[in-house]
Amino acid sequence: MQRTSLGGVTCSIARTMDVIGEWWTPLILRDLFVGVSRFEDLRRDLGIATNVLTDRLGTLVGEDIVEQVPSRPGSSRSEYVLTAKGRDLYPVILAVMAWGDRWAGGEDGPPALIRHLGCGQDTSATVVCAHCGERLTSENTEGHAGPGGRTGPGTMLIGPILASRA
Amino acid sequence: MQRTSLGGVTCSIARTMDVIGEWWTPLILRDLFVGVSRFEDLRRDLGIATNVLTDRLGTLVGEDIVEQVPSRPGSSRSEYVLTAKGRDLYPVILAVMAWGDRWAGGEDGPPALIRHLGCGQDTSATVVCAHCGERLTSENTEGHAGPGGRTGPGTMLIGPILASRA
Repeated sequence: MQRTSLGGVTCSIARTMDVIGEWWTPLILRDLFVGVSRFEDLRRDLGIATNVLTDRLGTLVGEDIVEQVPSRPGSSRSEYVLTAKGRDLYPVILAVMAWGDRWAGGEDGPPALIRHLGCGQDTSATVVCAHCGERLTSENTEGHAGPGGRTGPGTMLIGPILASRA
Repeated sequence: MQRTSLGGVTCSIARTMDVIGEWWTPLILRDLFVGVSRFEDLRRDLGIATNVLTDRLGTLVGEDIVEQVPSRPGSSRSEYVLTAKGRDLYPVILAVMAWGDRWAGGEDGPPALIRHLGCGQDTSATVVCAHCGERLTSENTEGHAGPGGRTGPGTMLIGPILASRA
């Protein structure tokens, strides 16, 4: 089954999901953030087929989210490390995790906790306004068209709606 | 092609992606947040097949993220609205969008902007510590096992790693 590419949709959500939305990819990123970075370790941790892992890492390398580097200088073994573009996905992963902790947690509580080394507390990711720091909700915000906004496949109706609010 | 369920992985990222990670689902949620809420409007906006949209909405209704309600009291027409659990996905969508704006934007700039009605500014979502408000990064945080942490499929290696840090 060939998936439709979302990359042609003029939308930053579509463009992001086109890159990181492949099945298993968010868990590969999770592992890289935790420090599991060798192909064989990723395969064992996730229990996925070699060809699937090869495909997903290939996409991430092609998108400059991950790079393959020697484990040590001159070593023939390699590992995968996140680029700056990849490390910037950390807030996305944290937001995904926080929702799961709130709404899809088991009876035993969160599987993992995130300690903020700055203040020393176990924290949860909170999404706030870059200007004033208030928590952003669907009620206290409104979307409108940006300079790159277009009406086309994937934005046939919301393109005009967002433009009317600009 | 039957996708593997990620719901059995003891991980809040896996559990979330199992629910909202189906192809097209983030764009359906985007449309619902913008106010496109009828089946036919969603289909026209996204340009996807009826059976795909039916399947995705069925998952979202089954997961109590979306509910189908009459367009008006007594009307035979219906629309889809986000539940509280669904509206709480807004920060996730904003974090995804912000990354796309930074790293996958076109030359024309962001397709859409988010105005924070509280301060009146066009904003971008920032992920901060719930305790101290500092921006969270992979460098200033460390994951460790929570009460629900387990070692099993999808956490074979990181289960012990996170447990060793608890």
